[in-house]
Amino acid sequence: MSTDPFPSWPDVAPRLIAVAAGREPADMVIRGGNWVNVHTRECLPGHDIAIAAGRIACVVPDAGARTGPGTRVIEAGGRYMIPGLCDAHMHIESGMLTPAEFARAVIPHGTTSMFTDPHEIANVMGLEGVRLMHDEALMQPVNIFTQMPSCAPSAPGLETTGYEITPGDVAEAMQWPGIVGLGEMMNFPGVAAGDPKMLAEIAATQAAGKTVGGHYASPDLGPAFAAYVAGGPADDHEGTCEADAIARTRQGMRAMMRLGSAWHDIESQITAVTEKGLDPRSFILCTDDCHSGTLVAEGHMNRVLRHAIACGCDPLVALQMATINTATHFGLEREIGSLTPGRRADVILTPDLSTLPVDMVIARGRVVAENGAITVDCPHLDWPGHARDTVHLGHALRAADFEIAAPAGANSARANVIGVVENQAPTRALKADLPVRDGLVEGDGDVCQIALVERHRATGGVVNAFVTGFGYRGRMAMASTVAHDSHHMIVVGTCRDQMALAANRLAQVGGGITVWRDGDELALVKLPIAGLMSDSPAAEVAASADRMIEAMRACGCTLNNAYMQHSLLALVVIPELRISDMGLVDVRSFERIDVLEVPQ
Amino acid sequence: MSTDPFPSWPDVAPRLIAVAAGREPADMVIRGGNWVNVHTRECLPGHDIAIAAGRIACVVPDAGARTGPGTRVIEAGGRYMIPGLCDAHMHIESGMLTPAEFARAVIPHGTTSMFTDPHEIANVMGLEGVRLMHDEALMQPVNIFTQMPSCAPSAPGLETTGYEITPGDVAEAMQWPGIVGLGEMMNFPGVAAGDPKMLAEIAATQAAGKTVGGHYASPDLGPAFAAYVAGGPADDHEGTCEADAIARTRQGMRAMMRLGSAWHDIESQITAVTEKGLDPRSFILCTDDCHSGTLVAEGHMNRVLRHAIACGCDPLVALQMATINTATHFGLEREIGSLTPGRRADVILTPDLSTLPVDMVIARGRVVAENGAITVDCPHLDWPGHARDTVHLGHALRAADFEIAAPAGANSARANVIGVVENQAPTRALKADLPVRDGLVEGDGDVCQIALVERHRATGGVVNAFVTGFGYRGRMAMASTVAHDSHHMIVVGTCRDQMALAANRLAQVGGGITVWRDGDELALVKLPIAGLMSDSPAAEVAASADRMIEAMRACGCTLNNAYMQHSLLALVVIPELRISDMGLVDVRSFERIDVLEVPQ
Repeated sequence: MSTDPFPSWPDVAPRLIAVAAGREPADMVIRGGNWVNVHTRECLPGHDIAIAAGRIACVVPDAGARTGPGTRVIEAGGRYMIPGLCDAHMHIESGMLTPAEFARAVIPHGTTSMFTDPHEIANVMGLEGVRLMHDEALMQPVNIFTQMPSCAPSAPGLETTGYEITPGDVAEAMQWPGIVGLGEMMNFPGVAAGDPKMLAEIAATQAAGKTVGGHYASPDLGPAFAAYVAGGPADDHEGTCEADAIARTRQGMRAMMRLGSAWHDIESQITAVTEKGLDPRSFILCTDDCHSGTLVAEGHMNRVLRHAIACGCDPLVALQMATINTATHFGLEREIGSLTPGRRADVILTPDLSTLPVDMVIARGRVVAENGAITVDCPHLDWPGHARDTVHLGHALRAADFEIAAPAGANSARANVIGVVENQAPTRALKADLPVRDGLVEGDGDVCQIALVERHRATGGVVNAFVTGFGYRGRMAMASTVAHDSHHMIVVGTCRDQMALAANRLAQVGGGITVWRDGDELALVKLPIAGLMSDSPAAEVAASADRMIEAMRACGCTLNNAYMQHSLLALVVIPELRISDMGLVDVRSFERIDVLEVPQ
Repeated sequence: MSTDPFPSWPDVAPRLIAVAAGREPADMVIRGGNWVNVHTRECLPGHDIAIAAGRIACVVPDAGARTGPGTRVIEAGGRYMIPGLCDAHMHIESGMLTPAEFARAVIPHGTTSMFTDPHEIANVMGLEGVRLMHDEALMQPVNIFTQMPSCAPSAPGLETTGYEITPGDVAEAMQWPGIVGLGEMMNFPGVAAGDPKMLAEIAATQAAGKTVGGHYASPDLGPAFAAYVAGGPADDHEGTCEADAIARTRQGMRAMMRLGSAWHDIESQITAVTEKGLDPRSFILCTDDCHSGTLVAEGHMNRVLRHAIACGCDPLVALQMATINTATHFGLEREIGSLTPGRRADVILTPDLSTLPVDMVIARGRVVAENGAITVDCPHLDWPGHARDTVHLGHALRAADFEIAAPAGANSARANVIGVVENQAPTRALKADLPVRDGLVEGDGDVCQIALVERHRATGGVVNAFVTGFGYRGRMAMASTVAHDSHHMIVVGTCRDQMALAANRLAQVGGGITVWRDGDELALVKLPIAGLMSDSPAAEVAASADRMIEAMRACGCTLNNAYMQHSLLALVVIPELRISDMGLVDVRSFERIDVLEVPQ
C-alpha cells in the first residue's frame, strides 16, 4: 500500500511558521503578483507569495525578509496569481491515458487537483485496479484524489463485469491515503428504492467522513429525486438545465457543471447564478470525461473556466467554482483551492483573468510547467503484467462466431435493432425486417451487426445483434475493448470475417480500438492497460485516436462523436436498447429481449 | 465514555428515503412555510418539510403524500422556516450554568447548535472536566459540539492551574464522539515562536481531520500574524475592527464576529461585507461569552442575528453566518446548518426575518420550545462528588493571611498596583505610595487589597497585592472562584477580616461569588460545580448574579461589567498587571514583579 508521499501541513508547520515570521528564508518567492483571493473574491495587486516545503508560508505585500540566497525568486510582474485549478469529477480512463500521462497532459493547462473516479478499471480489474490507479495518482507532482467507484456493475443482473465492487471494498478503500469519497452513485433507482447494497456503500463513505458523489441522470425532479437526495449523495453532475442546477443546490447538493469533450452542461445551468442570482458557493465546474484529443488541442480546466466566463460568469466567481468551492466540497479547503498559508503551493501565473493564458504552473512549490510545456517528470507505476493482459477471448474468433441463425425455413426475419441517434446518448429500440441467406439473418442497408464479446473470463461468449445509424459501407468491422461500463469488447461490422479479424487483433495487442476493411487494419489505438488506457503520451494517443476516427469515416460513418457512440452501446443503464454479455437489453423496462421476433 | 445517542444519517437513511419517496408517512410535517434556503440564499414560499427519525426527509411544495394518521402536522401558515441557529464559538461556563441549564436557557431563543470550548473547567478539573461537560452536552436535545481546550494553563510558567492540558490529552479527546476540534489556540506568541507543545496540539487536531480554533488577540497584522496563520488555526474571534476581519478572511481563516454580553465586535467588522463587499462565506457569528442575565433578558444567537441585521447586513446573509457558514467551517454541512434532506431537523418558525421573533423551535424533529417556553427536558449529568468539591484552601483563612508586611521601619511603601480601567479588559500597571500601620502596608483611598488564594491543591497559598479602580468604600470584601483562567480564588477587599470571611464562605459552599460588608454576606452566587457553574435554572442564577452586582454597587463600585473586571484580574495573558498564584505579573514583559518597590 502506498502512502501519500507529500508531507502534511503539521509535518512542515515549524518551517512554515519560521518563514512566515521572517526567521528563515523561503524556498521560493513569487514576487509582485496580483493575488486572486478566492475566499474574499478579490484581486489584490502587489503581493508576494512565500513558499516552503511545498506549501504556502505566507502571502504578504513584501516577502523580502523571507528571501535568502537560496530562495528561488519568480517575478510575477503584475500578473495574476490564481490557485491551481481543480477538476471536481472526472474519469482518467476517458482520456485513454494512465494517471501519469493524463497528469502530464493537463498540468501545462493549470490543472493541479483532480477528483477522479476510476470506475472503468474497476469493472475490469476490481478493487486491485482501483488501487493501481490510486497508487499511480499519488506518485504524481499534482494532487490526484481518488473517488472509490460505487457501481460495478452498473446494471446488476443485466451484465457481467470483470469484477464487482462491494460495500466491503468501499469500506476498505476509505482507509487508503488518496481516497476522498465515493464515486458517482449511478444506481439512482436503487438508492430511491432503498437498495441495501447501495446504502451500505454510502454509509461506509459517510462513516469515514468522506464525500458521496452523486449521479442522478433523470429529468424527474419529483419523489424519485427527493428520495435520491435523502439517500446521501452530496453532489451531482448530471444536470443539464437551469432547473436541474437550482433543484440540486436548493436541496443541499453541490451542482457540478460539466464541460467535457462531449458534455456541454455549463451554459444551460450557469444562468442559475448569472441570471437567477443564486449564491454561487454550491456550484462547481468539472469535466467528467475528456478525450486525449481535447486535452492536446483545447485544454482542460482552463478550457472549462474560459467557457464559464464566456457564458457570462464573473471571472472571480467562475474561478471559485474551480478552486475553493471544490476544495470545500471535499473537506479539503485547508489543503488546496486557495492561495493562503498552509495550503499546497499550487499557483498559476496568468496575464488575463478572462482568457486565462497559462504562463506558469507551480504545484506543491515546484515549477511544473512553463508556457505550455511540462517541466517535471510524471512517474509511471510499474504496472503488473496481468494489468496488461486483460483481453481473454478463450479462443480465436471465427466468422461463424458472429452468425445469427434464422428461424428454420424463414426467408426474412424481424429483428430488434439498436438505433444510434446523432448527438444523443440514448439509442432507439427499432425493428427491421432483415433478409435471410443460407439460414443466417443478414444486415441490410444501414443495419449491420454488433457483437458483445466476453473478454474478462475467457468464456468464449459472443452475443450477436443488429445496430443501425453508423452508415458503414463495404466489408468492414470496428472493435473496441472500451465498452462502457462492463468493458467487454464491442464489435460492429458489416462483415463477419472482418469482425473476427478485428476482435482477434485486440486480443493480440491486449486491448484498444481497431478498424478493419477488406482484410486490412485501417487504424489501431493500443490501450494495453486493462484494455482501457495507454501509457504513451497524450499527443500520441490523440493522433492514433484521430486516425481511428478517420478510419470510421472512411468506412462511411459521419456521426459526430462516432467513437463514443460505439463505446456506449453496451451501457445498459441508458435507454432504449443496448447489448450486454447477457443479451440484448431493453433499458426502458430493464429486461432482456430476443434479437429476433418470434413470428406470430 | 458516552457516545452520541443521536442516530447518524446512514442509520436512518432507509426511512428518510421511504418518506421522501412517499412510501411511508413522516413523523412530522411542517406545512406551508417560507423555506429559507441558506445554500442558495433564497426565500421560497409554499414549502413543506417532512421529518422522520429526527432528520429532514424532504422539502417539497406539498408533502401531503408523506402525511399519515400518525404524522404530527405543524402549520407554518406562511411563516419563515429557518435553520436552527449555530453559535460558532462559546464558553458555556461564562453563563455560570451547566450545559443542561445553558441549553434550557438558549433553546427558546432558537439556538440549536453550539460549539463550546470548556476551557474554564479544563483549568480546574483537566481532561476529566472536559469529558464531563462533553458528556452532559451529548445528553441534550440540541447539538452541543465540544472544542477540546488547548491552553491550560494560559500562561505556562506564570500560573499553576488545577490541571494542565497536554498534546496527549488533545489526541485522546479527538476520539470522543462530541469533539469537533481544538478550542481557541490562545498562545499566539507560542505558535508564532514554533512552540512544540502548541504545534503538537494543533497537529493532533489536524490529524483527526478536525478544526483548529484560533485566538489572535493582537492588533499586529505583520509577521507575528503571518506566523500564527501559518501554524494552522482556522478561525479567529478576536478581531475588533474591519481590518482585522479582512486580514483574517484573506488569509483563509474564518472571521468569527462576536456579540457576547460584553463583546461588541460585529458592528465594527461586518462592514467588510456590507461596505467592502467581501464574499460573506468566510464570516461567522458567535457569542464567545454570555452571562445568564443576557440569556434571560436579551436572548442568545437570535440577539446576535438581530444585531448583525441592525448593522446593515442582509438578513439572509446574516442567517448564513449563523447557520451554513458555521456548519461548513466545522465540516458539518451535511449534518446541520440548512433545511435540506438528511440534516438534523432543526427548524425555527418566525414571522419576520429582521426582528426574528422565535415562535417555535424544533430540534432533531421534536418541538423543543414554543413562544419562548421550553417544552422538553434538558437532562442533567450525574456529576461526581469531587466535581462539587473543588475549593480546597488547606485551612480556614484568617485576616493575617492577607497581611502585606512593610519593609522594616518604613512609614510608607511604594507599591505596584493593578489599575482597573473602565470598559477595558487591559489593566494598567500603576504605582502608589501607601501608608504603613503596625508594620503592614495598608490600602488607601481607592487602592484596596487583592489576594489570589490557591484553591486547587490546598497549599494554603495566598498571594497579596493591591488593586485600584473599583471604588469600594467601607469594610467589605468580594471573593470569586471564577478567576480566569486558572480559576483559583480572587478576593478583593478593603478589610482583611471581610476578605477572610468571603474566602472561607466560598470554601464552605463549594465555590461561587460572594460579597461581604461589615460581617454580613450581601450576596452569594453559588457555583458548586468546579466553582464555576450552577445546575440551577438560568433565571435563578441571573437573579443571584444581579444581587451580586447590586451588592458590589452598594459597596461603592460603579464600573460597567464590574464582576467581569473582578474575575479577569488573574488573567495573566492580558496586559498590563495581573495577579497569579505565583505572584504579581507584569504582562507587558511576562515577568513576575514584587508588590512593593525596594527603597532606593
